[in-house]
Amino acid sequence: MNARYDIAIIGTGPAGLEAAINAKIRNKNIIIFGSEDLSSKISKAAKVNNFLGLYNITGIQLKNSFAEHIAAMGIGIVNEKINNVYAMGDYFALMVNEKSYEAKAIILATGIEYTKPLIGEEEFLGKGVGYCATCDAPLYKGKTVVIVGYNKKSVEETNYVSELSEKTYFIPMYKGEYNLNQNVEIVNHKPLKIVGNDVVTKIILDQGEIVTDGVFMLRDSVSPSQLVPGIEIENGHIKVNRDMKTNIEGCYAAGDCTGTPYQYMKSAGEGLVAALSAVSYVDKLHDNK
Amino acid sequence: MNARYDIAIIGTGPAGLEAAINAKIRNKNIIIFGSEDLSSKISKAAKVNNFLGLYNITGIQLKNSFAEHIAAMGIGIVNEKINNVYAMGDYFALMVNEKSYEAKAIILATGIEYTKPLIGEEEFLGKGVGYCATCDAPLYKGKTVVIVGYNKKSVEETNYVSELSEKTYFIPMYKGEYNLNQNVEIVNHKPLKIVGNDVVTKIILDQGEIVTDGVFMLRDSVSPSQLVPGIEIENGHIKVNRDMKTNIEGCYAAGDCTGTPYQYMKSAGEGLVAALSAVSYVDKLHDNK
Ligand SMILES: Cc1cc2nc3c(=O)[nH]c(=O)nc-3n(C[C@H](O)[C@H](O)[C@H](O)COP(=O)(O)OP(=O)(O)OC[C@H]3O[C@@H](n4cnc5c(N)ncnc54)[C@H](O)[C@@H]3O)c2cc1C
Ligand SMILES: Cc1cc2nc3c(=O)[nH]c(=O)nc-3n(C[C@H](O)[C@H](O)[C@H](O)COP(=O)(O)OP(=O)(O)OC[C@H]3O[C@@H](n4cnc5c(N)ncnc54)[C@H](O)[C@@H]3O)c2cc1C
Repeated sequence: MNARYDIAIIGTGPAGLEAAINAKIRNKNIIIFGSEDLSSKISKAAKVNNFLGLYNITGIQLKNSFAEHIAAMGIGIVNEKINNVYAMGDYFALMVNEKSYEAKAIILATGIEYTKPLIGEEEFLGKGVGYCATCDAPLYKGKTVVIVGYNKKSVEETNYVSELSEKTYFIPMYKGEYNLNQNVEIVNHKPLKIVGNDVVTKIILDQGEIVTDGVFMLRDSVSPSQLVPGIEIENGHIKVNRDMKTNIEGCYAAGDCTGTPYQYMKSAGEGLVAALSAVSYVDKLHDNK
Repeated sequence: MNARYDIAIIGTGPAGLEAAINAKIRNKNIIIFGSEDLSSKISKAAKVNNFLGLYNITGIQLKNSFAEHIAAMGIGIVNEKINNVYAMGDYFALMVNEKSYEAKAIILATGIEYTKPLIGEEEFLGKGVGYCATCDAPLYKGKTVVIVGYNKKSVEETNYVSELSEKTYFIPMYKGEYNLNQNVEIVNHKPLKIVGNDVVTKIILDQGEIVTDGVFMLRDSVSPSQLVPGIEIENGHIKVNRDMKTNIEGCYAAGDCTGTPYQYMKSAGEGLVAALSAVSYVDKLHDNK
């Protein structure tokens, strides 16, 4: 059986990091998922002037001071993308491809995805469209699969799928070297639309189209409603109250994913509040036993 | 006529400072009231570990990094205590003893006062009990006044009152030298209770009592409902929505004064949100002209 954590935090931007720090200070057994680079929205900032106490710094400097802070506190980041979170009653199951983790409470600090879904993507979700290629690969044994890849990890997933599928296409959405298996065909055209009847039949590109059984969209993040089935969304953001509680018992959220303004300090402040709310939730769970 | 500021910020803890920074970055004409020492709740902290990016620092170091940040941005603090704020329709009047300031929007970042009111203090407020001795001094011409002073500024106010009143007593609630006029009598006993019928008649001490016409309680801060008449309070805190808006149009709040958890990062995050909300309020005011 897996060890069950007190609090699992998804996301390593300012919201997730400040949540981790405060939950750890309160002696909770935590796990935090994201990237060792923390967040591209930190490192890509040319100049930051509005983070109180750290004036006129680059995004890289800000990232370094965050990284030093968590390192000094012994907080390590698990470099994995969570694909799904299931509320199991008194705990949550966090799914990472073939693995899973358990936690009593969770904090969603996933930021906001600026990429709009493709036309047809939401319509055909679960009907040929998927977000986790390694999870669903067995369904495509002997079939055709198109993978729209936004990052290096998507190459790994593509290779895995290509070992089962009859034919695999890879549409790269980023620049770089793609270390793909020989049998994967790279398509350098922009995807525009996913079409089908009951299920996906093809993907339309800016030049031409591909007839396919499945399309995987492998972005850095998944939308909250896809990540946590049943979570309440309001105006495109996770709905929270002033304690950063969502509609799901034991599930908290913080940062850009809860709404505007999209800013570091707002995210960090909410991360702190979410952590303290999760801590008292976990403490109450124990008291009731 | 006074210059009218875009945004006036009351309080120089993390909430007020982060609000000032963000309003200034958005080119608003701001004024911030508080203390050049920022906040005793910053400088008195022995060790701070939960302010993301600044690990394992003393309160003094935290204070210095805040002070450097605002100084580098050319933000100066007006070292005054605001006694009252009046909503005048499309602007606010902020009262500082004999002076007043005008602003289109205000942000309350006053922290939370831990001192409990004296028994009878709230009952007799406006009926012999007051918080601004210099404002109300003329009412006590030829009469007896007791001043309960929590800080150095209260000594100045006491001296001013003593020039009009018949008899002035000063009850110091802090240690230090009291540079009082000759005719002021210092009383070194703890005040317990304010009593009277329709109006105040005396103040009861742990030893003895003083028959008086008026009692002034001169603390570092005033309660929000006393500061801004009509502001909505919920469970002892200023009621705000997720945009940090209070029930009064153009009036925002941030930090400890809006509720728990009482923490730096929560306060700073709310300060940012309050500032951006106030900025868009001010911009809309202009558009409507
Ligand atoms: C170029 C640029 C400059 C900016 N400059 C400023 C500025 O000067 N001042 C300012 O205040 N703000 C600025 N911002 C905005 C600021 O970056 C964001 O508001 C802030 O980073 C949001 O923090 P967050 O913690 O909510 O999410 P993010 O920083 O977006 O972090 C979210 C993290 O969660 C991870 N994640 C998402 N889903 C999953 C999952 N399923 N499993 C595992 N991990 C996941 C992501 O990979 C990412 O690491 C800037 C943004 C950009 C892009
Ligand atoms: C000893 C100590 C240690 C702490 N340690 C930590 C810690 O490690 N981590 C943490 O996160 N939190 C800590 N805290 C809590 C933290 O200090 C507060 O949550 C935080 O300072 C609140 O910020 P604020 O901006 O809301 O208000 P404050 O910091 O209280 O600032 C309010 C300011 O407004 C001024 N003001 C009030 N009324 C008026 C008026 N009418 N006119 C003009 N000015 C006015 C006050 O004088 C003050 O300067 C500690 C607190 C104390 C006392």
